[in-house]
Amino acid sequence: MSAAGPDAAALRTLTTPARLTRFFAPRIIALIGASESSAWARNVYQGLALTGSTDGIRVVNPSGRSFFGIPAAASIGDLDDAPDLAYLFVGPDRVETALREAAAVGVRNAVVLAAGFSEAGEAGLERQRRLAALAVELDMTVLGPNSLGFVRPGVAAPYGSGIRGPLLKGSLGLVLQSGSLTSALMPFALGRGIGCSLLAAVGNEAVVSSMDVFEYLIDDEDTRAVGLFLETLREPHRFMELAFRALERGCPVIVLKAGRSDAGKRAATAHTGAIASDDAVVDAAFRQAGVIRVDSLEEFVTTAGLMATQTRWPDGRRMAVVTSSGGGSNLIADCASEQGFDLTAMSPATAAQLRAALPPFASVQNPLDVTGAWMSSAGASVTKPEDNALALMAADSEYDLVVHVMTALPQDEPADRGGVEARIAGLAELMRDAPVPAFTLSLVSLPLGEYPRELLARTGIHLLGGIELGIGAIAHGVRWHERREPLLAAGRATAMRRPLVANPPAPAQEGVWSEHDARIWLGGFGVPFVPVELVGSASDAAAAADRLGFPAVVKVCQPGLAHKSDVGGVVLRLQT
Amino acid sequence: MSAAGPDAAALRTLTTPARLTRFFAPRIIALIGASESSAWARNVYQGLALTGSTDGIRVVNPSGRSFFGIPAAASIGDLDDAPDLAYLFVGPDRVETALREAAAVGVRNAVVLAAGFSEAGEAGLERQRRLAALAVELDMTVLGPNSLGFVRPGVAAPYGSGIRGPLLKGSLGLVLQSGSLTSALMPFALGRGIGCSLLAAVGNEAVVSSMDVFEYLIDDEDTRAVGLFLETLREPHRFMELAFRALERGCPVIVLKAGRSDAGKRAATAHTGAIASDDAVVDAAFRQAGVIRVDSLEEFVTTAGLMATQTRWPDGRRMAVVTSSGGGSNLIADCASEQGFDLTAMSPATAAQLRAALPPFASVQNPLDVTGAWMSSAGASVTKPEDNALALMAADSEYDLVVHVMTALPQDEPADRGGVEARIAGLAELMRDAPVPAFTLSLVSLPLGEYPRELLARTGIHLLGGIELGIGAIAHGVRWHERREPLLAAGRATAMRRPLVANPPAPAQEGVWSEHDARIWLGGFGVPFVPVELVGSASDAAAAADRLGFPAVVKVCQPGLAHKSDVGGVVLRLQT
Repeated sequence: MSAAGPDAAALRTLTTPARLTRFFAPRIIALIGASESSAWARNVYQGLALTGSTDGIRVVNPSGRSFFGIPAAASIGDLDDAPDLAYLFVGPDRVETALREAAAVGVRNAVVLAAGFSEAGEAGLERQRRLAALAVELDMTVLGPNSLGFVRPGVAAPYGSGIRGPLLKGSLGLVLQSGSLTSALMPFALGRGIGCSLLAAVGNEAVVSSMDVFEYLIDDEDTRAVGLFLETLREPHRFMELAFRALERGCPVIVLKAGRSDAGKRAATAHTGAIASDDAVVDAAFRQAGVIRVDSLEEFVTTAGLMATQTRWPDGRRMAVVTSSGGGSNLIADCASEQGFDLTAMSPATAAQLRAALPPFASVQNPLDVTGAWMSSAGASVTKPEDNALALMAADSEYDLVVHVMTALPQDEPADRGGVEARIAGLAELMRDAPVPAFTLSLVSLPLGEYPRELLARTGIHLLGGIELGIGAIAHGVRWHERREPLLAAGRATAMRRPLVANPPAPAQEGVWSEHDARIWLGGFGVPFVPVELVGSASDAAAAADRLGFPAVVKVCQPGLAHKSDVGGVVLRLQT
Repeated sequence: MSAAGPDAAALRTLTTPARLTRFFAPRIIALIGASESSAWARNVYQGLALTGSTDGIRVVNPSGRSFFGIPAAASIGDLDDAPDLAYLFVGPDRVETALREAAAVGVRNAVVLAAGFSEAGEAGLERQRRLAALAVELDMTVLGPNSLGFVRPGVAAPYGSGIRGPLLKGSLGLVLQSGSLTSALMPFALGRGIGCSLLAAVGNEAVVSSMDVFEYLIDDEDTRAVGLFLETLREPHRFMELAFRALERGCPVIVLKAGRSDAGKRAATAHTGAIASDDAVVDAAFRQAGVIRVDSLEEFVTTAGLMATQTRWPDGRRMAVVTSSGGGSNLIADCASEQGFDLTAMSPATAAQLRAALPPFASVQNPLDVTGAWMSSAGASVTKPEDNALALMAADSEYDLVVHVMTALPQDEPADRGGVEARIAGLAELMRDAPVPAFTLSLVSLPLGEYPRELLARTGIHLLGGIELGIGAIAHGVRWHERREPLLAAGRATAMRRPLVANPPAPAQEGVWSEHDARIWLGGFGVPFVPVELVGSASDAAAAADRLGFPAVVKVCQPGLAHKSDVGGVVLRLQT
């Protein structure tokens, strides 16, 4: 709604990167209308407590009682110090008053949880327009309405959905048009050691939009990749500009965009009042801007997590795979082939070295199954055959990248941790020193316990969870890396000046355009067509065909007629 | 190799369902050559201990020392009682002697762990043939070589790969050609509350083949669905017969078949000496036999787990979805549409009931997002709006099935467990009593802790993990149910008598057949073709075209020429 709001330019002054930098770093947070009977309020309190201290929490409740052990002020004016941020639990009809009261004591940042705005018919839409106008009037940066808030590990987590801690700090910035996915996303990310620089749920985007947070994150020094969950692209041109800027900065952008299907589009419209977009156009625009598009929540987190940590990408697709699971090597081979990787054979010299190192019954090929033979005598052995083989494969100039399959790690700290920790440290060193980029993955997508997660984090290993998700994430990264230079070289001039996500001018008539009108309009953007003439009679058609040459096609041309062939209006391959 | 073994009919007498029933229910198990320095042996010991008692374990080791606190017998003949099963840890060159010694004391069942058989060149192949012949001579049922053993929860788990307990007993029978996947599969299944009746790793299949275990499981009363991980189909005709028999019995068969790609086929051949099959033929054969084919380990477990527990399937594809996550409803709508479900609107009567029950800003449509409004006052509330809405949607005759999205469950037992337990019991009752089949899923694929897993198991709720995996599993089940009757009606006569997975007779010449030869051969099976004549000159071709009619095609016909059009050997659409 921001674009259609009362004062779009004025709104933008509330949501600049500088304003958002302050917005996302509050020290003192007032919970307006909080009480323990609200699950939202309990969640926000617990989220804030997860960041280490509850000292900055203030509670405002007309009852004046204590909540969460904190004596409530009856009104925000009664607080001793001015909050940096107000989190409003009040209902939609009390939002305006609460914002005015907060502004009166100098508050410039607010999260509005209440629903019942643009997603709720004409009356709600009007209420949201008034909210936006009020934000401008009060010089107030507002996240919401219908927003759960944000999570910034290490700083603050005023978030209305339950977070199962701990909060992992990392380099992934997340922007969600649906905050209700957070309770699913965060535990999934935590179990894969994926931490965030910020997670923001933008709700109905009356003031702060997903694009504002996107813009802020591109230049945020804690952020190395941005993940967006979108139900709609309200500002397509701005999205394309920001995506291109991110590409220039080397900041990968990963988008999970709902609305691929008609049913999904209807659902998106219902949820936050979003107008869904034509999915083929979205797809094409994403490709042109180097955006990584994913299709599921699991793919979103796995891919974004890799993009936020991986710094080296291969310049080719020749992939070596090392595993101790025969069945796993087959599945990886299938998946990697389908993702366009070339599982070429190792050089004869590398093969000879591997044959000397492995048991006689091991097949020395790619993917390499080192077999489980070492298990017959594995006691305190530190290095594993797949780690040693990884070093040999990575040194072979036949390969552009190597993939290592991690054997199961202990979920809890073992009595003798020396063995596993030396092994992981050694593997990390191998991967870091490898002449080509090295990746490691597990055979299925399973969360790690706290002990292995911290062990991997300490050594800098990012473990991809699952064959399809892991190899898929690597493939996304490789394609992103491959396309980046050509897209940058093509440059803004060709890629950005044209309305790639179409905001077409109003058609001459309602409904479906005629092919002739569409052709003229598209031709204006330089889209090429086969030669054509618009004619009014059979004899004119015959004359035009003689001029244009055979074989020829005749089509009926009429506005509003979308499926010409259904009514016999197309005749193909005319030879005379 | 079993089919090519020294005495195929005799081998089959060792692997009948009756023999396997005894094989998979050993009380006394001798670990031959076990010692604590072997990780395999440690795993087998721990696996057996997980079934509750180590009383039945005997250790045989020439050293005569104690292992795992059990005094070892120097030879199997020194044991007080005859083992029901011998698990051989000895190397490949000592397998024969160990089997003879075991047979001498009456042992009729053995697991052979050693590698170095059919996967290891000509010498290994010959060694495997000798092993099979020996099994016949000794009347010994042998699982392996290169087998990790089996897991039968509640009975015995002599298994060489580490199992992170507990062992969940369930109704899914699993047969794996690669046991090394078990350490990935079992924790994934455990976290989703999916239990097994049996998991068997068949290794090189010298004696007991995957088909033997498949046959055993179809009639096993503890088994309701069979999951197969296959690298190859060694006995395609038998597979088709068994799959059809399973279909008759209403026992779903789920197959994860590696070797979709050329690289995957190479890997499969290396791993267990398997000859990989043409994947398109495999696909077609699976469809004809009502087999559910999956592509990833996660899809394998999720789908098989559902098929082993779900008893009601819908007779149509009109799906109602109820969730409290707006973003989730969009993603589910996309996924369900792509899987061929029809997210049709509810009836006006149901819509009116829902509007009365939900907050005014909720959009009453399908998928139904009940919103999180209840959270503002949720204290000890037992029922949730999505549960109530589920009952309304399920009662609407517009729908053939309903899908409920489960809100996050507590991972550990809460102080006040009454609320959550009453809610889950109520939901289970709603689902059981629903007029149409009801399913429940979580937004992402995450494992459950012990508390929620046992709570769901107690109430009979099977929670599907993740949108894509969960909706995908439901879609597999619906298609299986839809196809079952037509496939059974078509019957053995048409579906089974012909070699659907081709074992073609030796071609008249090596290499690529000519189109003419292929046509004659395929025509023999009743495959129809457009009219064709083989001619030897341009004038004969013109005469043939006159007889057959226009438009016509001329192709060059030569054995060994696979890509005729690449050499200009095909001319299409000739009009004269």
